[in-house]
Order: sequence, then structure tokens, then C-alpha cells
Amino acid sequence: MKLHTKFLLIGCSVGMWFMCATLALAQDPLPSWNDGATKQNIMEFVEKVTKQGSPDFIPVAERIATFDNDGTLWSEQPMYFQLFFALDRVKELAPQHPEWKGKEPFASLLKGDVKAALAGGDKAILEIVMATHADMTTDQFAQIVKDWIATAKHPKTGKLYTEMVFQPMLELLAYLRANEFKTFIVSGGGIEFMRPWAEQVYGVPPEQVVGSSIKVKLTQRDGKPALVRLPELNFIDDKAGKPVAINQHIGRRPIAAFGNSDGDQQMLEWTQAGTGARLMMLVHHDDAKREWAYGPESKIGTFSDALMTEARKSGWTVISMKDDWKNLFAFEK
Amino acid sequence: MKLHTKFLLIGCSVGMWFMCATLALAQDPLPSWNDGATKQNIMEFVEKVTKQGSPDFIPVAERIATFDNDGTLWSEQPMYFQLFFALDRVKELAPQHPEWKGKEPFASLLKGDVKAALAGGDKAILEIVMATHADMTTDQFAQIVKDWIATAKHPKTGKLYTEMVFQPMLELLAYLRANEFKTFIVSGGGIEFMRPWAEQVYGVPPEQVVGSSIKVKLTQRDGKPALVRLPELNFIDDKAGKPVAINQHIGRRPIAAFGNSDGDQQMLEWTQAGTGARLMMLVHHDDAKREWAYGPESKIGTFSDALMTEARKSGWTVISMKDDWKNLFAFEK
Repeated sequence: MKLHTKFLLIGCSVGMWFMCATLALAQDPLPSWNDGATKQNIMEFVEKVTKQGSPDFIPVAERIATFDNDGTLWSEQPMYFQLFFALDRVKELAPQHPEWKGKEPFASLLKGDVKAALAGGDKAILEIVMATHADMTTDQFAQIVKDWIATAKHPKTGKLYTEMVFQPMLELLAYLRANEFKTFIVSGGGIEFMRPWAEQVYGVPPEQVVGSSIKVKLTQRDGKPALVRLPELNFIDDKAGKPVAINQHIGRRPIAAFGNSDGDQQMLEWTQAGTGARLMMLVHHDDAKREWAYGPESKIGTFSDALMTEARKSGWTVISMKDDWKNLFAFEK
Repeated sequence: MKLHTKFLLIGCSVGMWFMCATLALAQDPLPSWNDGATKQNIMEFVEKVTKQGSPDFIPVAERIATFDNDGTLWSEQPMYFQLFFALDRVKELAPQHPEWKGKEPFASLLKGDVKAALAGGDKAILEIVMATHADMTTDQFAQIVKDWIATAKHPKTGKLYTEMVFQPMLELLAYLRANEFKTFIVSGGGIEFMRPWAEQVYGVPPEQVVGSSIKVKLTQRDGKPALVRLPELNFIDDKAGKPVAINQHIGRRPIAAFGNSDGDQQMLEWTQAGTGARLMMLVHHDDAKREWAYGPESKIGTFSDALMTEARKSGWTVISMKDDWKNLFAFEK
């Protein structure tokens, strides 16, 4: 809370310093977090790495924090939101693809049977993504994402997807940035699916969003250079891919990393393996009432027993949604 | 010069405003640039995109400037400095590779005949790079680069390579940053070759360095996760690769781009194709006395006649090293 306090005090006249100091202490940078060990872990970490002269002090340039997206910054049930986007795209593109009526996974999707469509596993998902995310320019794709995210509603809550971001995590992002951390998203989701709205929703600019990608090629459209998205995988930013992508995009090891599933394990291990103070945290979805409760059995956002064991052994903090978060979503207040 | 001026004025008492304002005007953010059209182009561009209410105003978040490295920020003759690094590595690694004595391009290199070694063209260069840049962890490679760059000297000038950065370009980087631009390097050189020193030398942090790369794999070393560099190309950040890499790493189109050779053409075209005010510049090496003079005939940093024609046609500024730069290197002063 150091920096925070300092900023508030700047506005205080000398004669009123005591009142102002009290006010500053009352200002909680993480109001949606319940008091307890988890919140304390975060604040103690931030204080010790930012305090000049502390043995754990870390220079501003090295204050890199990485966040997974699906299940860490916003919900991911009953399936990844990007998949809802892809399904909506299939419906929109169907008139141009009469052949889809006789071809899986599209045929099932168009009949409204998502479960049957996804029975084909990763191969089916890849086919859907390639059919809906490629063969257009990067500018066109960004516009399609912007239009969709501004209007599409979650099937269960009826809220915009961007309303289903976790208020405690927004506060955490802002708190870290107020303490001169650079915050990055490192997600298995599509890099060009997140960038069009991540700055407005999370305060994370495009150049600090890392994700999975398809190949892109420079070409000419109407006499101007254009980047066209190809139906070909470029990089999967998940599991062992996360440290590789962090190295490629950021070129520094994070000092803090936040995830929620088996896909984040290697990112947290990579973060912890550096020297100096480190903070590793996993969001645990244990709140069936306010969100969803799932763990090892879930195909989306699997939190395996092995991950829980490693978290306990390695001193990673497991965030209990139920116990640690006062509010989940801004719309609840 | 707006922001610059504002900062200086903050330190002025009210009664002394006139003297201070005069002082601020006298402060030149680009002292190593001769007065003339080139310097004026830069300053007019910066002033119009940063001035609130200007029809050309561009918000801070979109002020992205990209710089090529070899030949744009530092010299590149008689060959790319990274190649000198590779050759020094060959000599150091030779005792572990007795087979190199009978194998090109290594045999010629070890006899000191660089020209014969490089006669094999790109294939020879690739073999040298793979043999000297791979099969170690990313941390080990960064340390090797740091040790080399701290001591290795240029064969002609006898200076450290980092002393051969162009003073006018350092001033330009600082001037843009003072006006809230985010400055990126987008180079054909190795991303992990530049990152260990780019922050100290150019003020550009690792996460804003984009370059060519080899593949990297997550593995375990001494019970800890480690990223190992593989002898396999990942990406060539040159020509049509530059807009692709800008899209992948930055996710925004630059509003200013600086290069010096045919390898930068597509980056400048991509920059110019955006809407709003844009600045495209090419450093022309026409100063045989203070540096080198070369153009279409040079294999290193080719500046073809076609590029010159496009620059003239498209309104790109060609920076004449000889005429536009008062000082080239800090050590000249």
C-alpha cells in the first residue's frame, strides 16, 4: 500500500497530515478481497518488493506479472468464451458454406447440438476455429471481435462476456500497476481474440497480451499491404508453451504469476525458479453459488489433484473464490 | 518540444517565467542533428501528434515507434556485429569440435579466412549461427552475450560495439519517449542477442525488442525448469517478416518507423498504410569519412535504387548521415 499512501498524502496540507494519514490507511486497494491469509500474501509481497532498502526489493523494470485469462481473469464455463464466439461465427458464415450441412462438426453445430459437435475433441475444435478465425485480414478480424464482444451475451447469466470478469482480479491488476508492475496476459486463448478488448476491460495494452496464434502473411489488398490470417496453427500458448511464449514476448522472467488450471503449472514453476521474492497464485473455482465449482473432473479449466499437491508443496497460494472474494462481479454489487 | 518545455518550466518560480521560457526554447532535444528539413520533419511530426486539439493528435497508447537495429541504431560494417560474435564463438568452441578442422564453413573461419567461410552464403551463415547460438539455456546464452558485448572490440575502430551506436538516434529515441512514445526495436538480428544490452544502451526494455529467433524448448536442468535453445529456425524478422512480427509482438500498427535498408521496406509501407499522421525514415550511409558509404551494391544493409525511388515517391525522409548528423558517435565529441 506504500505508493498508494504516498499519492494520497501529496494532496494533504501540512497541518492536516494526521487526518490524511488515517484516511490513507483506510483506503483498501483490494476492497473485493476478504481479509485473510490470501489478501495478506498479496499485500506483503507487493510491499516487500517495492520498499526501497528491503532485502526483497525488486527494481521497477523487473516487476513483471503474468496472468492467465480464461478462469483467472474471467469465467470459462460452460465452455471457453472464445468457443461461443466461434459458434456464433459458424452460424453467421453458414449461408456461404452449404457444404457444412453434411459435414461434422458443422452439421451438429447448425442443428444446435454443441455437445455432439465437440465430441470430435481437439480436432473438431481446431476445424471450427480455422473455419471462423482465418481467411480475412487482421483488421477485419479485430473488427468482428469488437462487434461480437460488444453485444454477445452469456447463455446462463445473460450478461455481456466482459461483465463476467472478476472484480477482485481487476483490483489486483490495478494494485500491481499502481506499484509499477507491468501486467501481462499469458493465455491459451487467441492473442488476436483478446487484444481488441483487453485494454479497455483489463487495462492491458495489446503489446502486453500473449496468447495462442495462427499464422499470418503479408499480402496486398486494394493496393495496400495487409496481413491475412491463414488456417494454420502458429503457436499454442498453454502448459510448456507458456514459459516459451513469456521468453519470446517478454524476455524476462515474471516475479508474479496467476493462473487457475493445469495449463498454468509450467508458468508458475518457471516464475518460481527465478531468484528473489516470487508470488504464485491459483484461482480455485469452488463457488457453485456465485460462479461454478469444478476441479479435477472438469475438461474446461482442469485443476488436477496433482496441481493442488504441487501448490501445497511449493508454497503457491490457492485462492478460494468462495472464501477469499467478497464480490465476484461488478454487476453483483 | 512541448513536453520537454513543460518539464523545464515546472522548476521555474512564477517571477522568473520569462527567463525560464527562453531557456526552455534554447534546449534542443536533438543536438546531434544539423538544422534542416530532416530535423524539422521529425520535430513537426512529434509536435502535431502530441498537441492536444491538433487535427493530427494521436493518443499516448497509439504512439508506437519501431526501429531497425543494424545500420539504423548502430553500424553494420564490414559485417553485422552479431556475425563477429558468432565468429568469436567458433574460435572459443573449436577445441570441443575437432571435426570443424575438416568442415566448411568452420575450417576457413579457423584459418582466419572469413571471406572464404562466408562464400557459402546464407547456408554457411545459418550453420555458423546454429553451431554457436544453440544447445544451451536462454540464461547461459544471455550471459555469454553480456560478457562478449562488454569486452569485444570492432576490428576497424577499436571501439566497443556498443560505442558504435549513433548518437543522433539515441537522442531521437529519448525525444520520442519524452513525448510518451513507446519505442520498439524490430530487427533482423537475433532477439536474444539484442535483449541483454538493449535496455542499457538504447533504453529499450527486453519486452520491446523484436527480432529473429531460433526455437526454444522447456526442459529440466538440475531439477529446475530451463529453456533450451534448439538449432532450429523459428522466425526471420526481415522484409515481409517485419509487419508479421510487429503484429505478433506489438499488436498495433506503428505511427513512426525507422530503417536503413531493403529489409525495412515492408515495415515502412505497413506503417504508412495506417490512417492518421505517419513518419517514415531511412538512414542513408553516405559518410565514408566518419562511418561508411554504401548503397545498392552492398550485401550488408543493401539500400537499392528501388528503395530510394519508393522513398521519394512515398514521402519518406532519407536521412543523410553526412549532411544531417552533426556527431555520429559519442566518442567523437
